[in-house]
Amino acid sequence: MRAKPLATIVSAGVSKFGRREGLYARELFTEAALEAFHRLENVDPGKDIKAAFIGQMSEAYEHQSHTAPIAANWAGLLPAAATRVEDACASSGAALRCGIMAIMSGFYDIVMVGGVEKMTNQPTPEVTTILASAADFPFEQWNGMTFPGLFALMATSHMHEYGTTEEQLAKVAVKNHKHGVLNPKAHMQREITLDEVMKSRPVCWPLKLYDCSLITDGASCLILTKPKLAKKLTDNRVQIIGTGQAQDTFLLHERDSFTSVKAAKSAAQEAYKMSDMKPKDINVAEVHDCFTIAEIIAYEDLGFCRPGQGGKFVESGTTALGGSLPVNTSGGLKSKGHPVGATGTAQIYELYLQLTGQAERRQVPDAKIGLAHNLGGSGATAVVHILRSD
Amino acid sequence: MRAKPLATIVSAGVSKFGRREGLYARELFTEAALEAFHRLENVDPGKDIKAAFIGQMSEAYEHQSHTAPIAANWAGLLPAAATRVEDACASSGAALRCGIMAIMSGFYDIVMVGGVEKMTNQPTPEVTTILASAADFPFEQWNGMTFPGLFALMATSHMHEYGTTEEQLAKVAVKNHKHGVLNPKAHMQREITLDEVMKSRPVCWPLKLYDCSLITDGASCLILTKPKLAKKLTDNRVQIIGTGQAQDTFLLHERDSFTSVKAAKSAAQEAYKMSDMKPKDINVAEVHDCFTIAEIIAYEDLGFCRPGQGGKFVESGTTALGGSLPVNTSGGLKSKGHPVGATGTAQIYELYLQLTGQAERRQVPDAKIGLAHNLGGSGATAVVHILRSD
Repeated sequence: MRAKPLATIVSAGVSKFGRREGLYARELFTEAALEAFHRLENVDPGKDIKAAFIGQMSEAYEHQSHTAPIAANWAGLLPAAATRVEDACASSGAALRCGIMAIMSGFYDIVMVGGVEKMTNQPTPEVTTILASAADFPFEQWNGMTFPGLFALMATSHMHEYGTTEEQLAKVAVKNHKHGVLNPKAHMQREITLDEVMKSRPVCWPLKLYDCSLITDGASCLILTKPKLAKKLTDNRVQIIGTGQAQDTFLLHERDSFTSVKAAKSAAQEAYKMSDMKPKDINVAEVHDCFTIAEIIAYEDLGFCRPGQGGKFVESGTTALGGSLPVNTSGGLKSKGHPVGATGTAQIYELYLQLTGQAERRQVPDAKIGLAHNLGGSGATAVVHILRSD
Repeated sequence: MRAKPLATIVSAGVSKFGRREGLYARELFTEAALEAFHRLENVDPGKDIKAAFIGQMSEAYEHQSHTAPIAANWAGLLPAAATRVEDACASSGAALRCGIMAIMSGFYDIVMVGGVEKMTNQPTPEVTTILASAADFPFEQWNGMTFPGLFALMATSHMHEYGTTEEQLAKVAVKNHKHGVLNPKAHMQREITLDEVMKSRPVCWPLKLYDCSLITDGASCLILTKPKLAKKLTDNRVQIIGTGQAQDTFLLHERDSFTSVKAAKSAAQEAYKMSDMKPKDINVAEVHDCFTIAEIIAYEDLGFCRPGQGGKFVESGTTALGGSLPVNTSGGLKSKGHPVGATGTAQIYELYLQLTGQAERRQVPDAKIGLAHNLGGSGATAVVHILRSD
């Protein structure tokens, strides 16, 4: 039986990702919103959009909390109810879920969801410290743990348990940079070679510079509506047919396994069940490659390959453009960039383009079903969405 | 016609408010959650509660973002989906709205909403700076504006336009401290005299020390469910029959008026309309008295009295316990304390006690209908809820 849509995406926008000097988060969000408004000309944003849920990880970058009403104010949405949602790097994935619930509850007909992060105005060590606030203060941060450190623990465990190699990790980076060249909104539109990745300086072994995602300024947004109303608004529609969110222990060291993310498996199961889809039904996916190991584990957690086979899976070419299940056609967090709060809905933006045939040079032929996988922290939060072209 | 309930509150908890040395936010939240679990013995939290929306204003106090999964983890809610909601001082008011939508959407049968803020571990000047992050960085913070400053502008405008006096402001503080003495969870359980308020040192004229709410550690939570299920769970039930949220320009200086909060008027209208209630139907209210002037303006914005009459309204005794419309029976932010992220659902906690006849020495006789008014920032966000005993 064909799963009923929960809500329909009728437009989407992203800002240019990169080092956007001289712009505040509100301006980046407005840039994304203007693209979304432009795609949907028969909606009057200030009149028709009644609520906004906006992901942002940290107020530390701009010493600015209460971000949602600022972003809504600048994007011309007043007096729409505007609420910031934060689940670390899964902030806008979680914001999307709030938007879906807002539509399904009958409260609103049209809502905006999105996310934003302005990061490059802070020096890199400060950014690392701010990002670390999404890890546990007394047990992780206090002991010097950072996110490269947490994901390096996962990587070494995966290497130990399954024989995954540094080269396999590097191949995720090479693939995603190759994809990113085709995305004009990506931060780093430059191919890299396996050799460059392998020779890049260690950040936290086995993760090297090119195993890590980018510190990026950016914003993204989506316009959601009820499936019935969507048909009247545009022909470029994508249905949300599954959503899942789960949490795991906050502390990495309390988990049974470092080689998979239990919350992601649970969230995926929930989304697969709701959408009546299976891993083999997915045509295109955006997964949370904050570090290359995260993409390899994502393949396994999402059921794209068997546990431990993620390294071989990337080597097989299946997940490259031209393969049978292209992953991170946008370039991923690795090459498109990772403006933390914006990432979740930026993944959905890419799927929106793919599933409406607007992805241009990186279009996956006949893409009908897409999946997005968004992690918070070291996997205490996971959000998975499954989309279908309408 | 009797308005249908949107969702039903079947339990509630708050931590003791105050200077809670040696405790993290997660521990305060767990303290509140345990009270809520204790009130609802036939619900198994880890099994039956599937989602949590938790308000927190700032990660700066504990250098800890990604708060919702930590709080959920410690409170025993894993693997429930846990999401932080932030709208400055209206964070948990906004979280409650997410919870209502989560129930109404059909996603979940039972959800927890709440909020937490651990503040006293930072020195007071640092707290003032952190709180200021909810004001605009480039236009307000950068120019030295703080929240006492913003509300002082509203106060002087109100004094200029309507002849409101410093004594009238002070009477709000005297009333709320009198109420707070009756609340064992309140931070400052001590009566103060008009003379003490008037002679207290100026913070930002006309606001003096005792015109300002407290820097407090605290947490609060509610358990929500579908109205049909609620009857099976407990006899102590309160229905949510109206909710409203609106935003206004982020910058105070861009607003038409400093003597009323347009977002609060809009949110109240929305909640009154949804619940089919009028100001005269309200038996008890908790309003956002972050500064004494805010309570006076709230009376007017909520339609409890005419514009400009708020000063006289507090003098009349109407809003004191024993009057016809007691306001801030909990002690309000002024005496109970204002752990920012916890405030919205702590207001609802007080109404839950009042509307289920559990408010003990501060019980308002025959209270059936309650209203909560929660502001974010200088009023860029306002959230209003209307509750009915079930």
